[in-house]
Amino acid sequence: MDRSGALSRLRIVLSHPSHPGNVGAVARAMKNMGLADLALVAPRHFPDPDAVAMAAGGSDLLGKARVSSTLEAALADCVLAVGFTARKREISHPAQSLREIAPEIVAAAARSRVALVFGNETSGLSNEELARCQRLVSIPANPAYASLNLAAAVQIACYELALAADAFSAPRGGAGSAATIEDLEGLFAHLEESAIASGFLDPKKPGRFMERMRRLFARTGVEREEVKLLRGLLAAFDKPKRRK
Amino acid sequence: MDRSGALSRLRIVLSHPSHPGNVGAVARAMKNMGLADLALVAPRHFPDPDAVAMAAGGSDLLGKARVSSTLEAALADCVLAVGFTARKREISHPAQSLREIAPEIVAAAARSRVALVFGNETSGLSNEELARCQRLVSIPANPAYASLNLAAAVQIACYELALAADAFSAPRGGAGSAATIEDLEGLFAHLEESAIASGFLDPKKPGRFMERMRRLFARTGVEREEVKLLRGLLAAFDKPKRRK
Repeated sequence: MDRSGALSRLRIVLSHPSHPGNVGAVARAMKNMGLADLALVAPRHFPDPDAVAMAAGGSDLLGKARVSSTLEAALADCVLAVGFTARKREISHPAQSLREIAPEIVAAAARSRVALVFGNETSGLSNEELARCQRLVSIPANPAYASLNLAAAVQIACYELALAADAFSAPRGGAGSAATIEDLEGLFAHLEESAIASGFLDPKKPGRFMERMRRLFARTGVEREEVKLLRGLLAAFDKPKRRK
Repeated sequence: MDRSGALSRLRIVLSHPSHPGNVGAVARAMKNMGLADLALVAPRHFPDPDAVAMAAGGSDLLGKARVSSTLEAALADCVLAVGFTARKREISHPAQSLREIAPEIVAAAARSRVALVFGNETSGLSNEELARCQRLVSIPANPAYASLNLAAAVQIACYELALAADAFSAPRGGAGSAATIEDLEGLFAHLEESAIASGFLDPKKPGRFMERMRRLFARTGVEREEVKLLRGLLAAFDKPKRRK
């Protein structure tokens, strides 16, 4: 299964979007998550400078967006249409949660084109539009205020699907190599000697000092470079103090 | 562990936000996902009508937001500060992915206050600000354009944490009760009879018609009401046609 190519076969369909700023923010959200295929059904204003401004580095998606007057045209070459809805409905297929359905969407998109369909900012998808979709999805949200901004909903959808497709690894910071047990034992021995030499620790009554230090360092996950740094510090403490 | 109350102990900290529209969009994203505690460090414009407009139903969070001049003040009563960064850095703790760290954040927030820290729209968190955080997190994104809008990043963070806290179930549509095997066998028997009665199916050479029908219905997951509907339709087909 070509999971990595799945994102290129995911189409975001915005039906009757009112605000060009939202269309631009959707383009940015898509590009951030590696999607590129945007379709607009009867947008109120398009093209529009507000869309370009909000798209920022994703404005190339606006230039390539397909515009149609009907939802059918936007879905024609797709094998699966997934409608996003926040509302409970009486007559319709049951809505699944986004995370639940993400693997199925990615599996379908590994071979064929799949549409993710979002409705108008105020009214959402109509019952007629929902009936064109084979799956209904909802994004779990606060029942006291479940109305997500259009671009925010698209952002969450693209993020879930990029993760389900395992498209990008998270960038990692400068993780140094972890200290070995030998490094740590050297540090603990050095610490104990220094603590005794300083007069802080009485070797006849050591109490639980070293046990507590071991616990502290066990929790943190120490790097090799950090062990070197701490032993350098201990060596400096070990030296007789110079008079000021 | 009080996972359900964890969201109320999550604080979103925006350091040096430039655009009041983003601050408003963050408030909406938070409220959609059940968070309420917003802290602003040295915002360029606040309060501001653009923030209120973009907050929509989340504008009450703006009224309650705490504003401070330093990051330290915004973090003072938190036990854990999690910094969000898109950039790789040489000297810093390694960044974890959001999904990876979400359970740890929720576990900490089940008992104590936890801060999620986001930097300025253009420059992100400075190295000095990142050093105030005990964890660094990044959101996996397209390496060709990894710069998420501020409110989009907060939206994804709040969504992941609401799911990790199991805060909201997805609303379900009208899922009817599934048909039993007996219902289905009744349907298949009826379908076969009707197909024979209509002349479509030759009982002496049935071929694989019923096998294919069984496969089709096995894939779909049929509801009890749908079986009734289909048998009603078959019964109508069974009747002798009236002349027009």
